[in-house]
Amino acid sequence: MKQSELFTKTLREAPKDEEAINAKLLIRSGFIFKEMAGVYSFLPLGLRVLNKIENIIREEMNKIGGTEMRTSVLQNKNVWEKSNRWNDAVVDAWFKTKLKTGADIGLSFTNEEAYSNILKQYVSSYKDLPIYPYDFKNIFRNEARSKSGILRGREFYWKALYSFSRDEAEHEKFYEKAKAAYRNIFKRAGIGHLTYMTFASGGSFSKFSHEFQTITPAGEDTIYLDESSKIAVNKEVYTDEVIAELKLKKNDMIEKRAIEVGNVFSLGTKFSAPFDLRYRNEKGEEKDVIMGSYGIGVSRLMGTIVEVYHDERGIVWPESVAPYRFHLIELKSGMGKDLYRRLRAKSNEVLYDDREISAGEKFADADLIGIPYRLVVSEKTGGKIEVKKRNAKGSKLVSYATISKLL
Amino acid sequence: MKQSELFTKTLREAPKDEEAINAKLLIRSGFIFKEMAGVYSFLPLGLRVLNKIENIIREEMNKIGGTEMRTSVLQNKNVWEKSNRWNDAVVDAWFKTKLKTGADIGLSFTNEEAYSNILKQYVSSYKDLPIYPYDFKNIFRNEARSKSGILRGREFYWKALYSFSRDEAEHEKFYEKAKAAYRNIFKRAGIGHLTYMTFASGGSFSKFSHEFQTITPAGEDTIYLDESSKIAVNKEVYTDEVIAELKLKKNDMIEKRAIEVGNVFSLGTKFSAPFDLRYRNEKGEEKDVIMGSYGIGVSRLMGTIVEVYHDERGIVWPESVAPYRFHLIELKSGMGKDLYRRLRAKSNEVLYDDREISAGEKFADADLIGIPYRLVVSEKTGGKIEVKKRNAKGSKLVSYATISKLL
Repeated sequence: MKQSELFTKTLREAPKDEEAINAKLLIRSGFIFKEMAGVYSFLPLGLRVLNKIENIIREEMNKIGGTEMRTSVLQNKNVWEKSNRWNDAVVDAWFKTKLKTGADIGLSFTNEEAYSNILKQYVSSYKDLPIYPYDFKNIFRNEARSKSGILRGREFYWKALYSFSRDEAEHEKFYEKAKAAYRNIFKRAGIGHLTYMTFASGGSFSKFSHEFQTITPAGEDTIYLDESSKIAVNKEVYTDEVIAELKLKKNDMIEKRAIEVGNVFSLGTKFSAPFDLRYRNEKGEEKDVIMGSYGIGVSRLMGTIVEVYHDERGIVWPESVAPYRFHLIELKSGMGKDLYRRLRAKSNEVLYDDREISAGEKFADADLIGIPYRLVVSEKTGGKIEVKKRNAKGSKLVSYATISKLL
Repeated sequence: MKQSELFTKTLREAPKDEEAINAKLLIRSGFIFKEMAGVYSFLPLGLRVLNKIENIIREEMNKIGGTEMRTSVLQNKNVWEKSNRWNDAVVDAWFKTKLKTGADIGLSFTNEEAYSNILKQYVSSYKDLPIYPYDFKNIFRNEARSKSGILRGREFYWKALYSFSRDEAEHEKFYEKAKAAYRNIFKRAGIGHLTYMTFASGGSFSKFSHEFQTITPAGEDTIYLDESSKIAVNKEVYTDEVIAELKLKKNDMIEKRAIEVGNVFSLGTKFSAPFDLRYRNEKGEEKDVIMGSYGIGVSRLMGTIVEVYHDERGIVWPESVAPYRFHLIELKSGMGKDLYRRLRAKSNEVLYDDREISAGEKFADADLIGIPYRLVVSEKTGGKIEVKKRNAKGSKLVSYATISKLL
């Protein structure tokens, strides 16, 4: 894309009430726009990043048998009353409103009940299971305060998969597959080495759930980490008993701040029983459907990447989720045109700074936006291209052939 | 996809309160799930159709210079007060709710104000214009009644593009381009021959707006159509004066029911002025930004296609938007496996009915779901494949080579 056609511009200042690094940098560089605390619009560069993260997640969910659907935002009170989660004393984060008919409705704050309600219509036999439907959708939570940018939004973009299995053994098998898929996702998004599987509180049906926690000072969670085994424990369950059970040693554990970028949870029959979601096995006996939930905040993951990958000049995107792969900068008007045409014919991954502003402004903008490869053409570079990686100090003069190999 | 892994099943009956053909057929065939009147979830087959329609629209918007972004659902009262559209006496379709702080917020019912508010931050010079941002998003309207299935939802999926131009001439040029893009979209979605550009009421800044109306008895609108010129007039502006102005003849006009699948609207400064969205021209003079809006209901378009393309046995999807291109049916268990493997290696467009049910049930399901090419393998077909188009009477026995050419 030509930068002259991109309507966003970099800003010197973020809004004064914005405290989080992710929000400050993403607003200044034109990736997001603040609508109100905890609510952001995704501008063209931001949507490209969100789409790339979404595609990584989708590929990994499809690999383990996921089937994508899209449930509604507006939720029926009757459905959520079955599990008692309509009750504000149980769930205090609902946004609720009313139809003109007077009926109460809510905005999706999670998806368990919506899924069980839909699947009740289709599941009756062992032949119908297991199934692994998932959704990408906007989720709404009426947080009392919202100061963490896109790490904790009142509206955020989310993936949730639910597993519906015939028994605990089938559930466990998928649960392990999902954990492996999550590891792939965070690795592909560039934060695998900082993301730890973390034992956290379970529920009525399992002692633990598993969170994926990414180490960063911006994290809202405290975890205790054993570097050698790569296992972590959330503060909420960090007791001597749990440490012993997990065969960890208290002296090895390091306290860290971390962001929960994903979680997997064994739900047992907590959300199937209220919907009478049961099936008949081969012998004709009625059995409970066993559920699991597997969530990732897509926009939170984007914010986490920014918290992890930035320096004093701006964002440093990992290649897999960068809005573009190349930032082509011409220092004299029109000089980059031919190279842009050639690259563009092969790839949609080029942002071309064709604006008539100073070289200094272009370089500062490029550093703030944080695209992995900066390509400069000027009178000095002759027929060659100066390529510099965003996270490297030096640059190199290379030929078009070298660049085209990076496409 | 293997049909045994698709969790949806065809249903004999639609919900009793459902009157619209589109909803009845889409629910029975497992494309959508009714959450409440006017609110539907999109099941795996339905999401595939929605994605295909979305991609057609996206391609056509990008071709005319559109830049995609994604604005929030939650809307700030302060923004909408500027144009006086927060007022329930002006807009009665808002869903409103409150933050825990007590602040009033609304759910997106359209996007003009949100766009002007964002662009105010970026537009100041003639160099910043023209721009054509657009969004795909869920839109919420608190309709008093909702009986038309996905033709008129309380929650629906929508594309809106807004044009921001320097003057009327620049605006008009883009407006014509957008009309041509809309014609392409409806043509590619298979309803071009039934969709008429229709003169409708304008506003303070233009005498007419232009709707794209698709002829079907399910339509909520009445239009008057001149078959020879392919021009239509919405009942709301169908006066002798307008007929004369458009050089039409009253005797040639035929009254038809139609669905408004898209509209383009010249907004002038109606939504730029309240945001003080102005720019400086080459001479340094302050000028108004001229806006236009270009909307398409993606889910409504899907419903319209069903209203137009169905018969007594089910849906008959046009190839461009069908959930899959091929419906492979084996009449004996395992017989289709090898063909599925070969087709699947080349294309993601095969639904493979590997279920162990009767041939009659499989054929009835295939007709209801409405995939364009039905491929049958059985003991009778030998090494060949019986191919039948959904909208054709006869079938043909062909070789794999013939099928693979259709991929």
